[in-house]
Amino acid sequence: MKRSRYVAVCGASDPDPEQRELAREVGRRLAEAGAVVLCGGLGGVMEAVAEGASNAGGTVLGILPGADRTAGNPHLTFTIATGLGEARNAVLTNAADAVIAVGGGWGTLSEIGLARRRDRPVVTVAGWELEGVPVAISAEEAVRAALADDG
Amino acid sequence: MKRSRYVAVCGASDPDPEQRELAREVGRRLAEAGAVVLCGGLGGVMEAVAEGASNAGGTVLGILPGADRTAGNPHLTFTIATGLGEARNAVLTNAADAVIAVGGGWGTLSEIGLARRRDRPVVTVAGWELEGVPVAISAEEAVRAALADDG
Amino acid sequence: MKRSRYVAVCGASDPDPEQRELAREVGRRLAEAGAVVLCGGLGGVMEAVAEGASNAGGTVLGILPGADRTAGNPHLTFTIATGLGEARNAVLTNAADAVIAVGGGWGTLSEIGLARRRDRPVVTVAGWELEGVPVAISAEEAVRAALADDG
Amino acid sequence: MKRSRYVAVCGASDPDPEQRELAREVGRRLAEAGAVVLCGGLGGVMEAVAEGASNAGGTVLGILPGADRTAGNPHLTFTIATGLGEARNAVLTNAADAVIAVGGGWGTLSEIGLARRRDRPVVTVAGWELEGVPVAISAEEAVRAALADDG
Repeated sequence: MKRSRYVAVCGASDPDPEQRELAREVGRRLAEAGAVVLCGGLGGVMEAVAEGASNAGGTVLGILPGADRTAGNPHLTFTIATGLGEARNAVLTNAADAVIAVGGGWGTLSEIGLARRRDRPVVTVAGWELEGVPVAISAEEAVRAALADDG
Repeated sequence: MKRSRYVAVCGASDPDPEQRELAREVGRRLAEAGAVVLCGGLGGVMEAVAEGASNAGGTVLGILPGADRTAGNPHLTFTIATGLGEARNAVLTNAADAVIAVGGGWGTLSEIGLARRRDRPVVTVAGWELEGVPVAISAEEAVRAALADDG
Repeated sequence: MKRSRYVAVCGASDPDPEQRELAREVGRRLAEAGAVVLCGGLGGVMEAVAEGASNAGGTVLGILPGADRTAGNPHLTFTIATGLGEARNAVLTNAADAVIAVGGGWGTLSEIGLARRRDRPVVTVAGWELEGVPVAISAEEAVRAALADDG
Repeated sequence: MKRSRYVAVCGASDPDPEQRELAREVGRRLAEAGAVVLCGGLGGVMEAVAEGASNAGGTVLGILPGADRTAGNPHLTFTIATGLGEARNAVLTNAADAVIAVGGGWGTLSEIGLARRRDRPVVTVAGWELEGVPVAISAEEAVRAALADDG
């Protein structure tokens, strides 16, 4: 049996409309490609990607920082309330095969660093531009990069 | 939409045959009741409960201590490789609405304590007997207790 | 240079007077023996042991669950605000060479389990009585047990 | 009693000679200013800052990712072996009042993000240049920035 690709989509809770739309499209495209989508489970980019993926019939795992599962957004298929605070960023990125960062914010920066530290491929779109991290110019390109080494 | 009940099933990686069979039956009964099963994702009780639940068509989320997702047992529906070591016990128990502890071991004891600390109901079977924690005499009774306050 | 022995003292935030006095004496005796005392950094047993150790000139490291360092009790020499919630119990017990559990409570039970899981020797006093965990009848005996394999 | 300033110094385990020397000077200057130095406890920048601080009579708390305390470098005053893997970066940055990042690497990037996410002031030197994070041109300037809002 072929193991599904797990892709974490990170991003801020207060995206601008373009980032929100990008996140929704990233979610849809990942779901269409059969990937399991992981996200931080809260609002903003986390909610948009979950909405995009679940509307396309995909599976979304929300990895929450807090201890209360009901804080998850309504588009999550399954929710893990870690109770770890910001340390959940390490869980979210470690659990994924690849990471897409939509937009910016400090939490997202930490997730890029944690993912690369664990040798997970990362691609950014409409946000952080960092030496050594590819920047995609569209949701389609970001998704293609995140699935690239999926044999 | 009714939210599913999340039940974590904890237990050692080296159960005796009775505990293994109990875990399998617990998994089957939880799946038949529509609960989402969580476990530590490795062998022994963790594998038996996953097998029982997945064979009955249920969903099993494995919350691994290590950083490598492929270490999960083959019966998990989705796997979260936390990379947290033993601190994943806090995540596993916090993520659940109730906990069933099958058999014994120190990791299981820690999960009972962590779950009760977060006010999650716990029931034990064929293992730890602790003041303030109900003991079930069968898989059926353990599952009934774990689902008891599921409205 | 001889490495100091690190001993974690666990216990509830609402001990009875006897447990509080035991914790204070445990702290004092550990400090007199030159051990570094670790605790959860909050009130009750955690504060009493810190008070006993610091009054005797010892060092106390408080490992807090929350993200705010100022929540630590006033007797801590150094304070680590982990922000991990209950998962800090895994850090506290892992960081120690041995654990003394004074009194009871679910968090303390989890710490006993986590410590034993990592092969740290544990002794309880005036609280949990668990198969495989020695019970001391005095602070002096608990401290002696915790320092026992200190070469 | 005035509470000490806690400053975490982050950086890679394989710095170049300039970064190593900067880290040593940062450690020395922090110790001379009476700050408590926190670091990741291993080699490279972590060891150089610990050496600089301890040689100047300062206190260094090492927060290790692994479960084995003996993996800490020899210049640590106290060592917390968290067993959390990379999630210890969240503990290290949360425990500090301010963060100095010497040189680069992905782990360091994650620590910058985690610290800023928790509103800890961060300054970088000889490494990451990020919008919104001040860059110091010397150890002296980095230390002054890290102590700046120390009342």
